[in-house]
This record gives sequence, C-alpha cells and structure tokens, in this order.
Amino acid sequence: MIRSINRDTRLCMSLSGRPGNFGTRFQNFLYAALDLNYVYKAFTTRDLPAAIGGVRALGIRGCAISMPFKEACMALVDSIDDSAAAIASINTIVNDDGHLRAYNTDYIAVRSLIEEHGLATDMRLALRGSGGMAKAVACAFRDAGFRHGHIVARNEATGRQLAEVSGFSWSADMAGLQADLLINVTPVGMEGPEKDQLAFERVAVERARAIFDVVALPSETPLIKLARSLGKPVVTGAEVIVLQAVEQFVLYTGVRPDDALIAQAAAHALG
Amino acid sequence: MIRSINRDTRLCMSLSGRPGNFGTRFQNFLYAALDLNYVYKAFTTRDLPAAIGGVRALGIRGCAISMPFKEACMALVDSIDDSAAAIASINTIVNDDGHLRAYNTDYIAVRSLIEEHGLATDMRLALRGSGGMAKAVACAFRDAGFRHGHIVARNEATGRQLAEVSGFSWSADMAGLQADLLINVTPVGMEGPEKDQLAFERVAVERARAIFDVVALPSETPLIKLARSLGKPVVTGAEVIVLQAVEQFVLYTGVRPDDALIAQAAAHALG
Repeated sequence: MIRSINRDTRLCMSLSGRPGNFGTRFQNFLYAALDLNYVYKAFTTRDLPAAIGGVRALGIRGCAISMPFKEACMALVDSIDDSAAAIASINTIVNDDGHLRAYNTDYIAVRSLIEEHGLATDMRLALRGSGGMAKAVACAFRDAGFRHGHIVARNEATGRQLAEVSGFSWSADMAGLQADLLINVTPVGMEGPEKDQLAFERVAVERARAIFDVVALPSETPLIKLARSLGKPVVTGAEVIVLQAVEQFVLYTGVRPDDALIAQAAAHALG
Repeated sequence: MIRSINRDTRLCMSLSGRPGNFGTRFQNFLYAALDLNYVYKAFTTRDLPAAIGGVRALGIRGCAISMPFKEACMALVDSIDDSAAAIASINTIVNDDGHLRAYNTDYIAVRSLIEEHGLATDMRLALRGSGGMAKAVACAFRDAGFRHGHIVARNEATGRQLAEVSGFSWSADMAGLQADLLINVTPVGMEGPEKDQLAFERVAVERARAIFDVVALPSETPLIKLARSLGKPVVTGAEVIVLQAVEQFVLYTGVRPDDALIAQAAAHALG
C-alpha cells in the first residue's frame, strides 16, 4: 500500500523494454516510509522521443532508463552529468522544471562499491560482457584506478570497443588470462535459460582474490555461491541494483535514507 | 490509501491549467473499492502537444481534459466520439494501444441528468455562460429536445456563437426574458470571489419551474439554496461532476460502479 495521491503528488517512473517490479517496489516503499508525496510507476514505450517529451511536458520528476533505451536517450535530454557523459549511456533522468539532466547511477553505484569493499586497484581484472552495463562497470573500475585487465567478450567488435573506451585489453575468452578480480556483467546466472550456469570456470574462481557479479535477480548466482564456498570476498548484484536505486531516490527527492531503511526497502523489493 | 503499484498497474490522469483533487480522489477511491489495478494522478503542462504525445507513447490509459485545454486537444487525438464532435470540445481521452479517442462526458452527463430528472422539453430555458462547458450543456439540452430559450451572456461574440451552434437565441441579460428553466454555467456561486453571488435574480428563480447549476465546488450555491427554499426542483453541479467522472471511469475501466458505491466515492471526493 502506498499513501494517497493528491494534486501535489510527484510522479517518478521507469522506461524499459520489459518493465520489472524492483524499482516500483523499492521507490514506493521508501516514499511511504519517509512520508514523501511521490509515486512511482514502470512504463514501456514504442516511441522513445515522445515518451521523453511526455516526461518533460508532464513534469514527471524522474525517469529511470533501462534496456534498450540507455543510449538512445542521450540525444533527448538537455544536459548530461559526468557519470553518464564518460560512458555515453544513461540510466536516470531528473526533470528540473522542464530541464532534463541525465545521470548514470550504475556507474555511481559501482564506484561506491569499489571503495566500500576496499577492492585493491592493483588487481588484474577480467570483466565478462560488452553491453551498456558492462561499459558503466568497466569505466567505474578504470576511474577508480584499475589499470590492468581484460574485457572478455566473444563479440570482438563490442569487446574491442569497450576495451578501448575503458583502457583495458580485449580477449575473446579466459584462455591464458591471469585475473585477481572476476567481474560478471552478462546474464549468466540470471533467472532464465542461463540460471544454473557459472559465469567463470571454477579454476578461475579458485585463483581469484575477489568476485563481483552484477546479476541481481537472483543475486545468489552459481558464481557468487561458489565464491562464498571458497571463502572469497564477493560483491553481489543485489548491492549494485539497490545502491543505484538509492542514488536515483536521492536525485529525485533530495533525501538520503539511512542504511537500515535501505535494507528494509531492498528486502521488500527483492523479496 | 490506494493499493500497491506494480508493473501491470495502468495510469489514468488529468490535464488542466490548475489541477484539483476531485478526479484523483474519486477515481482512486473506486479503483481501490473495486480492486482494479489502476492509479490516477493530476497533471498540468506548458506543452500540450508533447503532453498528449506522452499519453500516447507511455500507454497512459485515459486522460481527463479540463480548462484551458478542451478545445486545443481536438487536433491532437486520432478520433472523436459523437459526444465531443458535435460541440468541438473534449474532456476525456481514451488510449487504446496508441489510438487516442476523444469524448465529452460533460455532455453525456447532462443528457443523462435531463432524462433522470424528467425535465420537460417544453420549458423555455435561460442558460447563463458561453464558454466550453456552456457549449456542452447547451448542446445536451438541444439534443434532448429543448427548442426554446436564450443563451444569456454579456460577451456578444461568444454568446451569439453559442446561440447559433445550439439553436437558441442570444440575450445580453435577463431583461424581459420569460424562462421556466434557469441554467447556470458561469463561476457565479463557486468558491472564490463570486461565492456569495446569486447567478439569477430572485424574481427569475421565483418564476422558474426548475433550476440547474453546474457549479460543483461547492454545489450548494446561493442559487441552489434559494431554489430549494422556494421548493423548486434542482439539478446540482455535484450531480454533473460526479456523473461525468463516472462516465470517464467506465470508459477507462469498462466497469460501471453501482449507485451506492458512486455515492460513497462522491462523498469521499467532494467531502
């Protein structure tokens, strides 16, 4: 249940190809807990420019942008925050009286998690994936000071491109790579056809010093479970999805919830 | 309080120069009472074409249109129902998978109330007002079979135009008019500077057989109070605003609430 709506209630929303429930549950939980006069709803669209035009014209306060709209939105906003400019990919729009400013809270969240978990920048990383989220993650590691490692992607074009953008090397697979930090930014381990698959081979996990998986639904992927069983430090997709949503919440409302409340909202939204 | 929102929740909304709370309270009350997965919110805009484009692109199910957008919206929709076409003024848009169809539920509501209250078509009417709502009301009376009477409006241009459209005569004031049915479609009696004023002189009310006032906030206007004190039959603005909102609800959801529930929703929204 959410609080009642009146003429002063502000709408925040999401645009994605396949709307989920996480953002809706997470944001509405916090609005209610903090008694903020906001409401959140997920949308999809077949006409992105008109949808973004509607966000502006209707005074919708904020809009989360998910696949497949993260790059196409760049041209539809009025200004772009550093978090999004560096990677040419946005996941958040904030509407200040008709001026749309774009952010990338995935990037912000990964930067925060690197620091929070004390991941040492001398580690050689192996990052699997080459999509929009992989770009945000790779650039976050680069900007945090990581200098050595590989983008591991079978798609040579997107893989090489991401390697170039982020300053790492490209490799089609893990053969011969030595990696201290394994980062999964593919759907392997996600609910669906690849749910039971391991994103990196067991031997690579055994050799690694830390594991980072962005898969959030579920966040206890085969990779994370294996890493935990081997006593390796892990950063899970639940941490990424929650923290990026917290950053969106702060951008929309100007209020930063405390850790206990964030944990409650996360349990509600992921439960 | 309204039910919780998820990815399947449908949004309905309003667009007006000065959003009120009536529609939001009325529609959300009925959604909750009937356990329909809808949510309703009021908006304003400075860019009507982009706002209507957003309604289409975001799949917003329905949109109530209020002052000052009722006529400008005509060019922005894909088809126009008879209820709106005849008066070139719309107050409701229904979005069927990207096709926007416009209706005028004020017209529909007034037609229903004429029948429900058994207002005799041989009455000579005097209708004060010449704006968009006056057009809907005058055309509803004409189409119900009323043939004699005057549009009473100090503005000669809009008054004469409405008289021509609706088939009545025009008069700048009530001097010399004999009217059986007094209809107020001006803000006289509405909350604000004209709250304590009587829309027709006492002598006209004494001579009339019935009184119809579209002012809804409050609906117990000086005109209605005087008519009641003289034992005249009245139709109030509360009936109009509620019935037009019911017709919107039916268009958006396909569900017609029963009279008891409508009364509860009206008490909630107007209370």
